[in-house]
Amino acid sequence: MEKRIWRANVGRQTVVTEAVRPEWERLGGRGLVARILLDEVPPTCQALGAYNKLVWTAGLLAGYRLSSCDRVSVGAKSPLTGGIKESNAGGTTGLALVRLGVHALIVEGQPEGNDWWILRLGAAGGSFEPAGDVAGLGVYEAAQRLIARYGRSAAFAIIGPGGERRLSGAGVFNLDKDGEPSRANGRGGMGAVMGAKHLKAVVIDPGKGELPSPLREEPFAAAKKDYLRELMAHPQTKTYADYGTAALVMMTDTFGGFPTRNFSMGHFEGAEKISGEALRDRLLARGKPSETTHACMAGCVIRCSNIVADEQGKKIVAPLEYETIALTGSNLGLDDLDLISRLNWEMNDNGLDTIDTGAALGVAGEAGYLRFGDADSVFALINEIRQGTALGRILASGAATTGRVLGVARVPAVKGQAMAAYDPRAIKGTGVTYATSPQGADHTAGLTIRAQVNHRDPSVQGELSRKSQINNAGYDTLGVCLFASFGFAKVPGAIPEMLRACYGGEVGDDALQQLGRETLRMEKTFNRAAGFGPAHDRIPHWMTKEPLPPTGSVFDVTEEDLDKTADW
Amino acid sequence: MEKRIWRANVGRQTVVTEAVRPEWERLGGRGLVARILLDEVPPTCQALGAYNKLVWTAGLLAGYRLSSCDRVSVGAKSPLTGGIKESNAGGTTGLALVRLGVHALIVEGQPEGNDWWILRLGAAGGSFEPAGDVAGLGVYEAAQRLIARYGRSAAFAIIGPGGERRLSGAGVFNLDKDGEPSRANGRGGMGAVMGAKHLKAVVIDPGKGELPSPLREEPFAAAKKDYLRELMAHPQTKTYADYGTAALVMMTDTFGGFPTRNFSMGHFEGAEKISGEALRDRLLARGKPSETTHACMAGCVIRCSNIVADEQGKKIVAPLEYETIALTGSNLGLDDLDLISRLNWEMNDNGLDTIDTGAALGVAGEAGYLRFGDADSVFALINEIRQGTALGRILASGAATTGRVLGVARVPAVKGQAMAAYDPRAIKGTGVTYATSPQGADHTAGLTIRAQVNHRDPSVQGELSRKSQINNAGYDTLGVCLFASFGFAKVPGAIPEMLRACYGGEVGDDALQQLGRETLRMEKTFNRAAGFGPAHDRIPHWMTKEPLPPTGSVFDVTEEDLDKTADW
Repeated sequence: MEKRIWRANVGRQTVVTEAVRPEWERLGGRGLVARILLDEVPPTCQALGAYNKLVWTAGLLAGYRLSSCDRVSVGAKSPLTGGIKESNAGGTTGLALVRLGVHALIVEGQPEGNDWWILRLGAAGGSFEPAGDVAGLGVYEAAQRLIARYGRSAAFAIIGPGGERRLSGAGVFNLDKDGEPSRANGRGGMGAVMGAKHLKAVVIDPGKGELPSPLREEPFAAAKKDYLRELMAHPQTKTYADYGTAALVMMTDTFGGFPTRNFSMGHFEGAEKISGEALRDRLLARGKPSETTHACMAGCVIRCSNIVADEQGKKIVAPLEYETIALTGSNLGLDDLDLISRLNWEMNDNGLDTIDTGAALGVAGEAGYLRFGDADSVFALINEIRQGTALGRILASGAATTGRVLGVARVPAVKGQAMAAYDPRAIKGTGVTYATSPQGADHTAGLTIRAQVNHRDPSVQGELSRKSQINNAGYDTLGVCLFASFGFAKVPGAIPEMLRACYGGEVGDDALQQLGRETLRMEKTFNRAAGFGPAHDRIPHWMTKEPLPPTGSVFDVTEEDLDKTADW
Repeated sequence: MEKRIWRANVGRQTVVTEAVRPEWERLGGRGLVARILLDEVPPTCQALGAYNKLVWTAGLLAGYRLSSCDRVSVGAKSPLTGGIKESNAGGTTGLALVRLGVHALIVEGQPEGNDWWILRLGAAGGSFEPAGDVAGLGVYEAAQRLIARYGRSAAFAIIGPGGERRLSGAGVFNLDKDGEPSRANGRGGMGAVMGAKHLKAVVIDPGKGELPSPLREEPFAAAKKDYLRELMAHPQTKTYADYGTAALVMMTDTFGGFPTRNFSMGHFEGAEKISGEALRDRLLARGKPSETTHACMAGCVIRCSNIVADEQGKKIVAPLEYETIALTGSNLGLDDLDLISRLNWEMNDNGLDTIDTGAALGVAGEAGYLRFGDADSVFALINEIRQGTALGRILASGAATTGRVLGVARVPAVKGQAMAAYDPRAIKGTGVTYATSPQGADHTAGLTIRAQVNHRDPSVQGELSRKSQINNAGYDTLGVCLFASFGFAKVPGAIPEMLRACYGGEVGDDALQQLGRETLRMEKTFNRAAGFGPAHDRIPHWMTKEPLPPTGSVFDVTEEDLDKTADW
């Protein structure tokens, strides 16, 4: 199927397709988001206004039947950060876009009236259909009704009540291969932008659309084989299959960087109770439908996901991941995995990012709006979010806004976006990433915790983060899951070879880094025009002064190193 | 009395005095605030955290017995804008500081515990006293109790519940010469910073402290005489005495720049009902205690203030000013001056800036939280503010945060601070000031409405605003009321002569502009380090696209002109 740009205007309710501009052809995912926003969105426009655009695009390697390489990016100017945003997710949406020949979907314009719509893309073209009784529903119920209406062969990108309310903590939710709507483009408020466009869901029905084939099959197959061999042989792949991302609990806690009670401690006394080991034991003991390992995308060999069911065998949430365990567990003083799973489900169903919402709840705890360790007080706030009360709106606007409205100075956020589950005072390389990523605080932009360095030695963190950020921006442009990078890292020739085989033309041996740097440069260019400068590439001042128990560490990477890191 | 720097640490509860550094000696007011913040406050610190400092300082000419020249500046890093902030006010505080020999009061540190304190400065030194039952009170009741406790000869800087709650719309309230606590350092959240320091009030008791005398009496007296003659002869002085600032209602409405229903119109059908003429007629008809003209500072010959009492002769508020009439009147669709006066009292009593709070209510109206023109729905939100509910906290955090939490893109704010009562699409010079002032949208930084130009011609506005901003930054450094500038403008030699007479040394003939430029440069330096760049020197994008009825004008001053304006 010929790749085309699909353009949907929510004001005129038109959907047209157009040829892919040459300069957009060899970009996908995060890189293409950056290119399109730079080309079409005024950097100073209002994120929830008429001039912002919401972009969907799969990565460059999506659809070529590679394990863990079919991720979908959603991007826009972020209402959370005020800068550029790309958030990628697994699930089935990326593959559906590729099968339908959608190189990118650009949603633009300002809706008229107050009705909610579903944007439907299929072989016959695109159309707007009334959302009807799907509007107002939580993500899980909405997904069921959409599947009933459009069938299981379609892919769905859905917002929850948080997105409908245009709250900056809202994400976009995609179905995994089993129909679970839990694969989130979670960060940066992409759900709020979708809500501002009055779209409850985008339905992509690829019909008989087929996956593309490489221009040159043989070299592609050879590179694929190398990649897969290395990925499957990597010990980390087994760790993910056994423990999921929750394996990171004890590691981060041991480093003294496990966010506890609004980032006031780096060690949680209940860490073991919410560790990957504890989670695995619990899931194994409970048996089906609980599962310790599960794939979000068809054909994924890593299978880092899981399914958490309760003692009665009723599913609570799937998957439960490390970031959520930390931000809604230790960060709120909670040490019960079932409780945390229920919080996770609630945030998903409300259509919210668990990281920013968990961090917001931590800030609310500091302001006395909940008691750390008291689940009832946490669920009372979840109910506020559910009801869309003023307090609920504050919390669902993320940690930075929560701090502003509740008068809390100790907010763990950069560029308005909450930090993930690695305190930057103890895992300083990831702190450099938080500080300097054009995306705001985001561990996926360049996590450094697995590097064999002293994570508290400030001198080595800049270069470490920089390399990771460049590689990750490349992977995000290719649609490659960051966990697949363990395989690709062992065979650096595989990605250039795959790109040559799929797209032809000249591809340098450092194609991954070239794509990464190009993407980061575009993002920085957008952000500079939106008002970001070196002063925004900083960890919050209080974290450079307030020592983090138990290590007593502060964030002390020099500003010079931070600025060098961000010089893409 | 020798001028000294008073330094109060709220953590250690110490108050010490120190000699004035040479480079601080020839600055006061806004200029000295900028110098102190640059010297002592990390620009990226948290505004509500331990490293921000709150500065009080009177202007350089305060205390020399000049009409309308005793204003007091309060400054800090702003929790509202994230940049530098100085907000000045009339009333009695400036003079008390001068009499006590306080060149500047610097409040610093982080409070321990949850108690509220009163910082008391007097001839015997400074001390912290428990706020006791004054904590939690509204500004009016707090003022009465403080007067009862400390006597009428002291001056008071007070916060209301909004400041105690650390909300970004909170100001600091000073007494006028008659003990009315209505002279606000209103803008930029200085009350929130004071609340974060856990100070309910600063009491300045000058005791027998005397006013300074010029080094050379004769030239000073001559310059003073020239200034006073021109000020009293100026027709605008009479206009202010007759109508107060409310005279601007019909003028702005005629230009099509009168903010109406969240800045969606520039003309209000009820303008005449809330005009200066209507206000004067009403006050004259009601007689005492209503007054059409009233002075906020002893000896002021302009007397722009007023007292609004109801039909039964009960005082509602004093004064009622233009900005409040517009932001809480036309901007909310209200056309009843008594109602507006009551809103004004409520906002004062809660310790809030009427401009940002009025603008926030307008944004809330756009989100459906009130009905424009329906006073009951407005007062219902005032009650939320009073109670400190989550919704009240949102509103009292100002228009920008209200827009963010309620999902409204049409927010009239620059650098996070709400615009005053001149729509920048119709009064474009003031729009340039909003855009480029380091203070955020603030008409007092450079109002252009009286210039004899076509206010919709974009080509002439940059230079107009620039001149006004430089002059006003100078006046704010001198402690000169902007309305006194009508007098000074006619005798440009008076200010340099007064500075020579009072301070000696070399003073250039363009001393006013030199002070203004120096101040603006320092402010811009602070802001740049805090993260501001050219992209922040812009009017909101939507106002460059959405035509303003009835003129159909958009803001179209070029970005090049904006950047030239801000090149101090």
